[in-house]
Parts: sequence; structure tokens; C-alpha cells
Amino acid sequence: MQAVWFQEGKVTLVEQPTPRPGAGEALLRVRCAGICNTDLELLAGYYGFAGVPGHELVAEVVQAPEAPELVGRRVVADINLGCGECPRCRAGDPRHCPRRRVVGIKDHPGAFAEYLCLPTGNLHLVPEELADQRAVFCEPLAAALEVGQQVHLTGRTRLLVLGDGKLGLLAALGLRHWCPGLVLAGRHPDKLAVAQAQGVRTISAGDDPRELLQRLGGPFQVVVEATGRPQGLAWALELVEPEGTVVAKTTSHQPSRLDLARLVVNEVNLLGSRCGDMALALHFLAEGLVDPTPLIEATYPLARFPEALERARRPGARKVIVEM
Amino acid sequence: MQAVWFQEGKVTLVEQPTPRPGAGEALLRVRCAGICNTDLELLAGYYGFAGVPGHELVAEVVQAPEAPELVGRRVVADINLGCGECPRCRAGDPRHCPRRRVVGIKDHPGAFAEYLCLPTGNLHLVPEELADQRAVFCEPLAAALEVGQQVHLTGRTRLLVLGDGKLGLLAALGLRHWCPGLVLAGRHPDKLAVAQAQGVRTISAGDDPRELLQRLGGPFQVVVEATGRPQGLAWALELVEPEGTVVAKTTSHQPSRLDLARLVVNEVNLLGSRCGDMALALHFLAEGLVDPTPLIEATYPLARFPEALERARRPGARKVIVEM
Repeated sequence: MQAVWFQEGKVTLVEQPTPRPGAGEALLRVRCAGICNTDLELLAGYYGFAGVPGHELVAEVVQAPEAPELVGRRVVADINLGCGECPRCRAGDPRHCPRRRVVGIKDHPGAFAEYLCLPTGNLHLVPEELADQRAVFCEPLAAALEVGQQVHLTGRTRLLVLGDGKLGLLAALGLRHWCPGLVLAGRHPDKLAVAQAQGVRTISAGDDPRELLQRLGGPFQVVVEATGRPQGLAWALELVEPEGTVVAKTTSHQPSRLDLARLVVNEVNLLGSRCGDMALALHFLAEGLVDPTPLIEATYPLARFPEALERARRPGARKVIVEM
Repeated sequence: MQAVWFQEGKVTLVEQPTPRPGAGEALLRVRCAGICNTDLELLAGYYGFAGVPGHELVAEVVQAPEAPELVGRRVVADINLGCGECPRCRAGDPRHCPRRRVVGIKDHPGAFAEYLCLPTGNLHLVPEELADQRAVFCEPLAAALEVGQQVHLTGRTRLLVLGDGKLGLLAALGLRHWCPGLVLAGRHPDKLAVAQAQGVRTISAGDDPRELLQRLGGPFQVVVEATGRPQGLAWALELVEPEGTVVAKTTSHQPSRLDLARLVVNEVNLLGSRCGDMALALHFLAEGLVDPTPLIEATYPLARFPEALERARRPGARKVIVEM
């Protein structure tokens, strides 16, 4: 089969043997997969990654020796593969298993390939009426909705999403169902327009967080930092109220400068946030609560992956999807 | 009256008029006050401070026109003076009033002076049997106990206090009444011995957080970062478990380098923590739950304040107390 290979900053298309499902696994034919900023970071050396990337996927089950009822069904997948034995895994949450493998990120092949094997327990059936181009947003939407799983958001929580990149947009589009009054601050009028069209209140971020604070009319209880930039954290700390919460979504490997004294004096809660609940995200997509299709930048076939990657790298690029 | 004056890195003893109590205020004769690391930071330029420092005080009420029953009583004081009108103040928490003044820190004279005026609502009566040298620890002990007001600590919470300076010691001595099994990690055998003598489990921090992690047998649910050093945060992030909480107590104005990706991937909660509940700290001291007297480094009269400050500056110095 054909697959993408990342190693030492280089991208190649390689020919590999089609994998065979192990115990409890299914063989999946990948239908499409999205390029995430994490993929760009992996290529830049994050985690010392060498392998097949790709963790936002829609696939069809081809073989499932222990679950034949799955064959022919479309699925999305939880990307964390726990050891199954540690206290975290036994409690049903492999996301923080210390020995976890992560599809396309850590010690497990990813989805930029024609085929992929995954444990059947990681698969979620995609409803027939949900198109691939929507279902492929399930993984990043789950990560966006994770904010509401970690922080108790109410209809009156004053919530600011900072950053109108892919994750910021999905966070605004998703979280507004819990906090209808949320505000999305960003730098790209075209992206803010995408959010506005789905009912999100938006504001141009400008160049100065204090000036933005004034235009916002004061600080927010919860600020989702989804700028993808190291200086986003300093902005968030300007925009959150005392005893408020900053949810950090940026995984850039550049270290951030943190004014710890400010965090301490204002007793701010800075909360890291990663992967989320795939079933919840599927629900949002299947019910049409979020329409992710305006976030699609372009679609490329696997054979043109290097072009797709270049497109995803452009500043301000939306989601690039690769079809197998 | 005699008072200490900090300005542009210089310390002087100055003669000032004795203040007169305004509406709702009492005139206090300061009995003693502790030197806090924040005072050293103020002298170094933190907050652009110029004025009389000192915020850990025990005093006697001399005049209280609207509360004459207070005259002659010993008191400690909440150091945050809110505007009284904003939503924060109306909710009874002036600690985060955006226009607050802070005794000896921001827009209000401090306690390294013979006299001081404060609103009577900020005063807490010191029980007769509680000696000045214990009561003077009320403010820093309240800050230490604040961890338990922000985070739900149970008898089984795995809690690590990182740093055996004054605040780390008080945190270990106080918080162990919520978490009897807590561990204090530090670099000073004499200070660890102070904690041990009051029933705290201690460990030598060493030079490498990963090596410490091994000796601790794994990460902790809650890590109190009280090292006072910019690199303390990186240590805390090594020692906290996924989805755990780091409580930041260090207010150094040197910016900290934060590996935001690590915080995000492990979904760590980094929580700033400042002043606490004076009434709770008074209870702890009055009931003998914490004996702070082994933390006393030395006691100086006000006239020898510059010497006291030099003593407080020595690496590893404990609490220096100034008597008026």
C-alpha cells in the first residue's frame, strides 16, 4: 500500500505492506484524513517522530475477525491506544496512560496511508447520513469540545475564544451551544465570517491585548487560548479575569514566556486541554450543531500529499483534507 | 513617627507624621512585622513601589472612633483594601478588586513604621494567649492555607510541596491537616528538619526533577510550587501527574519558561495562588495546629531595619521579624 512517511524534516510517499489486524483489531481502509497543525509540528521534530502521520480519519472497516458486524461500516477513531492494564486504562481513560501509543503521533502508524489497523474498541460508527467531509472533523471537534468537559460552562459563563485558526473556529462553533454569548477574537476577517455565519459573535483581535480588553468591555471568566502562537498565553492572561480560567490548546514546541507573578496575584487557573470525547463530537456533527464544511481549505489525493502539506502550511490555511 | 522607606532600590529610615484615622479606620501601633520575600521584590522594583513596605503585622489598636471597643486590643489585618463598590467588593472579596490597595504593597502605607491606619473591617482580634511571634505568621500562613481553599484536598490527595523556604514550610505544616501524607521536597536539611519535627514527611530535592520523581515513586496529584525560583515551574510540571494540579506560589518577577505543549498534552491545571483567609490562619495558630516559631531567623528593632533586611536577604534565611 501507499503511505506518507515523515522523517527528519522530510516527507516521502513510500510503498509498505498492507498491515494485518492483530488480536482485537480491525483492518481499516482509510477514506480521508485531515492535516492538523500537530502534523506540521511532528515534521518539525516534535516527539522525535519518524513514521506515518495522520490522526483525523474516516475509514471503512475491511476486516474485523472478532467483530465481523463492523465490516463495511464507516468509522472514526479514538487516537489514544492505552496499555489496557494501568490504573488509567482500567478506569476507562487511555488518554493519559503513561505507556499509550497515539495514532500517527506516537508509536503507532497514522492515517495518511491506504490502510491502518486499530483496536475495534477505538472505533465509532459514523451515521450513514454524515458525509466523510464532515466526519473527518470529529477528532479536532472533540478536542475543541474538551473545554466543556474540563470546565463547567453555563449559559452565562463569559467565554472568549482567542484565535480563529481551525481549532479556535471549531471551539467557537461547538462551545456556543453551551455558552451562546461566547466571543471569538481573531485576525482573519474571512475566518471570523465563517463563525459569524453560524451565529458566533466575533471581534477583530488587533495587535494589542490591552486595547482588545477595552473593546471587549472587560476581562472574561474563561479564555480559550487557541492562537497556536507562543505569545497567545500572554494575551490570554491579559484578557482573563482574576480567579478566571485560561484553557491552553496551543501545543507549539516553542517555550512560552509566562509572567508567573501575574498568574499568582490574579489566582488564574491555567488548564491544559488536549483530546476529547469522540462520541460527543459525532453527536454534534450528526445533529448538524456544527457545520465544519466552511473550514475546508482544499482536498488532495494521497499521491499529491506533499502539495497538500504545502497548502496546509500557508499562513491562515484552513483544513486540508487528503483522500485515499 | 519613624518609618522605613523604599524607593528606587534604596532603603532609608524616615521621620513621618503619625497618620490620623479616616472614616471607618483605626489607628494602630505596630508591635511587630515580618519581612517577606515580596518586600525584597518590592525593593528590586516589583510594582514600581515607592513607600513604606510591610504587610505581615501584629498591632495594637490605639484609636478607633467608630469602634471604641477595639482600643487596646491586639490585631492582625487583611491586607487587601477594596474599593467597596465593585461587584468583587460587594461579593465580600476585596482580594481581587481591580482598584484595591494592598497594605505595604500597593497604594497604602505598610507596617514597617510605628503607626498605621487601617479600616476596622480588615482587623482580626488576636486571642490573648497567642504571642506576637506566632500571630505575626498569620498573613503568610493564610497564603499557605489558600491552597486548600482553591483545591479540594482530601485525606488521600497525593500532595507534594516543592520548596522549603518560608512559604513552603508553612504550606507543609498547615496543609498536612488536610493531607496527612503530604511530602515536602527541599534543599535545606535544617529546614526539612523543622518540618519533620512537626510530623511532615520530607525528601531532599536534589538537582534533577526526574531523579526526584523516581525517588518519590511517581508523580503527585497536586504540587505546590513554592521554590521562589523561575525554574520551579518546570520542576513542578515534571512532578505532577496528568490531569493534576500545580499550585503556583512564586511571585518572582523574572519570567518563567513554560513548556506549554507539556501542560496541554498532560491536561495539567496550573493555578495561581496568593493571599488567604486570615481567620482560618488565626484558628490554626491559636489552636497550635502549626508552630511557626522554629521559622524565626532573627528579631531586630525598627531602628536596625537595614540590618534586618540584609539578614532576610541571605540565601536560605528564615523569617526575620522587626519589632517597633
